[in-house]
Amino acid sequence: MARAGLILKLSCPDQPGIVAKVASYVASHHGNLVEFAQFSDQLGKKFFARLEIHTADLDVDVEDFIEGFGTLGRSLRATWHFRRLPFKMRTAVLVTKTDHCLQEVLWRTELGEMPVEITSVIGNRETCRSAAERAGFDFRYVEMEGRREEGFREIRELLVEQKVELVVLARFMQILPDWFCEEFAGRVINIHHSFLPAFIGANPYKQAHERGVKFIGATCHYVTGELDAGPIIEQEVERVQHFHGPADLVRLGRSCERAALAKGIRYHVHDRTILDGHRAIVFPD
Amino acid sequence: MARAGLILKLSCPDQPGIVAKVASYVASHHGNLVEFAQFSDQLGKKFFARLEIHTADLDVDVEDFIEGFGTLGRSLRATWHFRRLPFKMRTAVLVTKTDHCLQEVLWRTELGEMPVEITSVIGNRETCRSAAERAGFDFRYVEMEGRREEGFREIRELLVEQKVELVVLARFMQILPDWFCEEFAGRVINIHHSFLPAFIGANPYKQAHERGVKFIGATCHYVTGELDAGPIIEQEVERVQHFHGPADLVRLGRSCERAALAKGIRYHVHDRTILDGHRAIVFPD
Amino acid sequence: MARAGLILKLSCPDQPGIVAKVASYVASHHGNLVEFAQFSDQLGKKFFARLEIHTADLDVDVEDFIEGFGTLGRSLRATWHFRRLPFKMRTAVLVTKTDHCLQEVLWRTELGEMPVEITSVIGNRETCRSAAERAGFDFRYVEMEGRREEGFREIRELLVEQKVELVVLARFMQILPDWFCEEFAGRVINIHHSFLPAFIGANPYKQAHERGVKFIGATCHYVTGELDAGPIIEQEVERVQHFHGPADLVRLGRSCERAALAKGIRYHVHDRTILDGHRAIVFPD
Amino acid sequence: MARAGLILKLSCPDQPGIVAKVASYVASHHGNLVEFAQFSDQLGKKFFARLEIHTADLDVDVEDFIEGFGTLGRSLRATWHFRRLPFKMRTAVLVTKTDHCLQEVLWRTELGEMPVEITSVIGNRETCRSAAERAGFDFRYVEMEGRREEGFREIRELLVEQKVELVVLARFMQILPDWFCEEFAGRVINIHHSFLPAFIGANPYKQAHERGVKFIGATCHYVTGELDAGPIIEQEVERVQHFHGPADLVRLGRSCERAALAKGIRYHVHDRTILDGHRAIVFPD
Repeated sequence: MARAGLILKLSCPDQPGIVAKVASYVASHHGNLVEFAQFSDQLGKKFFARLEIHTADLDVDVEDFIEGFGTLGRSLRATWHFRRLPFKMRTAVLVTKTDHCLQEVLWRTELGEMPVEITSVIGNRETCRSAAERAGFDFRYVEMEGRREEGFREIRELLVEQKVELVVLARFMQILPDWFCEEFAGRVINIHHSFLPAFIGANPYKQAHERGVKFIGATCHYVTGELDAGPIIEQEVERVQHFHGPADLVRLGRSCERAALAKGIRYHVHDRTILDGHRAIVFPD
Repeated sequence: MARAGLILKLSCPDQPGIVAKVASYVASHHGNLVEFAQFSDQLGKKFFARLEIHTADLDVDVEDFIEGFGTLGRSLRATWHFRRLPFKMRTAVLVTKTDHCLQEVLWRTELGEMPVEITSVIGNRETCRSAAERAGFDFRYVEMEGRREEGFREIRELLVEQKVELVVLARFMQILPDWFCEEFAGRVINIHHSFLPAFIGANPYKQAHERGVKFIGATCHYVTGELDAGPIIEQEVERVQHFHGPADLVRLGRSCERAALAKGIRYHVHDRTILDGHRAIVFPD
Repeated sequence: MARAGLILKLSCPDQPGIVAKVASYVASHHGNLVEFAQFSDQLGKKFFARLEIHTADLDVDVEDFIEGFGTLGRSLRATWHFRRLPFKMRTAVLVTKTDHCLQEVLWRTELGEMPVEITSVIGNRETCRSAAERAGFDFRYVEMEGRREEGFREIRELLVEQKVELVVLARFMQILPDWFCEEFAGRVINIHHSFLPAFIGANPYKQAHERGVKFIGATCHYVTGELDAGPIIEQEVERVQHFHGPADLVRLGRSCERAALAKGIRYHVHDRTILDGHRAIVFPD
Repeated sequence: MARAGLILKLSCPDQPGIVAKVASYVASHHGNLVEFAQFSDQLGKKFFARLEIHTADLDVDVEDFIEGFGTLGRSLRATWHFRRLPFKMRTAVLVTKTDHCLQEVLWRTELGEMPVEITSVIGNRETCRSAAERAGFDFRYVEMEGRREEGFREIRELLVEQKVELVVLARFMQILPDWFCEEFAGRVINIHHSFLPAFIGANPYKQAHERGVKFIGATCHYVTGELDAGPIIEQEVERVQHFHGPADLVRLGRSCERAALAKGIRYHVHDRTILDGHRAIVFPD
């Protein structure tokens, strides 16, 4: 886990020989491939892969190894990304009132379960300040009431200043402006309290109760300009019955939300996700 | 299971003392209450119950016991229904092409798992004839092409003639006319191949694939005039991943469909469901 | 939820008329039965019930109502228990090193999800002190090394002194002495990190990995003198694959442990459990 | 699906460069790798892979391609196996009394969901004859009563004569002799009606009821000389409650058994399983 290494994510048009070429490049420089997850999408004619490479025995500098891959990557018309291990992803957590998702993220971070460094917890309410500060994290209050646009500009500045790589919306009850979604595309993860695409919009647990569904759920997804429609990373469900009122669904749903968000973040920070239009390829662990 | 008995289903406005009154009526005539499932809906202010009563020691005729309950039922402004045990519900199964749901129903019926008597299998294609006849059931072909209205009139006549109490749509690919839904209200069960209310309409597995959901599902529900919106009886889900194409979802979904339909029918024929507007109260076993 | 009321738990030999008698007693004094969960065990010939009664309109003192029930209870040869609502159960949490179960309990308590008052967190290591104290709870260190018996005597004294009603073993890595199990029978809840009865004993995740199971799980159970064999309250499972090493199972298992323990405690403190020999009757919510 | 191709299964001691070497061999002959599932077991220092290769554009005969791989395979000290697509695995189904697992296998085979050709259904009772024959399959009765050894010799002869590649024990209630297990090692799949390793031995549902577990399950595994201890291919679980008696567990368990067996067979016949001592590596689809 703490061994020096690289993660390579790659997507390109499908064609014969990709695995051989990529694996051969790694092997030719004495990289040790400990995981090679791939997916050839026969419908979309695309190829996706995630490689985990131990670099202890590399015959070149890691920097050189990465640069040298470019020739191959370009010949495959690929999009690719290398990450050096070990690393911690600089992450801001945005919250409003409820703190269960925040607590889950803080707790798993402290446990070392996720390679994340919390830069700050940002709230448009003061409610979560104590939870954040008690756990030793910086809390920033940003007023949004009647100044949503300015509020988001402030958040943006903070994110840039703190070199934040990932923004987690941990039950942040504000719709992001389009310019924000674009600037941080693929780097904002939300937890939605329903089994999307069911119950889009407000009060999904109330909707779920009225519809009489037998499962409730939560959805962790990338945020795009289109509300609740971004690529899904993870979902969790729980069986419910007629006697569960809306308040029970909220209670039971919290566990789904925490579980789905925690896994979703984990997959993202371990580079186990690759965006593919409206979908996300996810190689779970 | 084969013991003589009664099932009583009851719903009424909630008020103190209902359980006492109903249970006392049963006890006063030496009925033995082996199951008393109840639900006081604190939001809707309604009371729902299902009682299973062994009648071996009744001090009156069963007929008389049932009639005598009327006084109490009316005083509670209740809707109620008695069913004598053992019984078999006369059931017609409507199909089109795919036979997996049909097979499941036939197989569980033969096994004696569900107290059902299949009156006939009715198809608007000939495809399922062999599956039905091979298992020893009557198959009726009803032409629908260009004569949907006449087709449904024919089906209606058959159902009436055969004294059918329950109509199961086992992947029957026709939308029922409103008059049919009304005439058989609360007696038509459908299996929908998605986790409703997600993916209403055509080709739900294709929709699910495009949306990149992490669970697919199936929904067993009562049919109402509003498409795919009737009260849900049972749902089943299964986890899927990015590599599952639409054909895989169809394959995996079949198991959800069979399971949800089988449980839904079971709950209905054992009088474990009570309709409550857009929802169904279900006391599972 | 905060309404004045009573919970009545009752078990007795099965016989006709119990529901009528119990419900009639409640109704005769204008108690309002909002939940009546019952189970007639046809194999064991026993009857179990949990009643939730709103007492706002009682025509007698609650004390008197409770006392008056005795005549009926004795005539049914029942064991019963009344609890007044609202209430909080005085609860001690015993821990060793890992804090994920402790955190879950503390967090749900703070959220008000469980009517629990934490009297103290007791550790045979210092590891969890900061988690407890940071959340504002009293932490007591009890040395066990080479003085297990004395350690447990100390714990017992603390529990008695603090009038503790429930002892939660939140990954407490010590086997309780028999005298302790007896003294606190039915009041000690443990979380076991396997899907019991599989993988009894040490290192269940390692065992699970070696056996190549496709699900891991956790079990919340009452503690009895017989190790890992007490009545099960709740279990949770999660699907795993061959690539999950023992460390992954530990990680994934933590979520099962937290979920199962939280539900188990909830059921217990809401009096939703009734012991029946080696089993627990559980009326979930 | 019907495209000409090869499946290659391979396991060998782990070492750097395996993926590159194997994929390069395929690419060098213009094979098109459409799936490359691999697992580097960091604990056991072993490498496992399953490749699916489209062979339409191969620059050599398939026979030659397979033979040529030997040089590489031996250099890796690998065990490997090629299968030509499309294919159907010749499969015998052994049964005793209950037919739900048999029905599931026959039905999925007829549907074309599994590339299986049923050579015969073999029963040590006559009970399943009608189910088999009605579906158009050959049924063979083998007397076992008081002649177990001879019975198994007869079965063996039939299997050999019919060139059977896979033996499915679909609730076959006889313990296989050691010589039989050895002769057909890795080619006999059993469905066990419990969530192994819990409830080994007789009457697992009764055991599960007595223990009061909250989930029941079924386990599909390879048969070895050690009873119920062979490598697990697939498991399925279902939540149960205190009111489910042993008969209910049997009923609910049947669904688990059918699901786990069907998936287990599917994984085997698609060469998605690789044996690794007491465990099976399974690449699910």
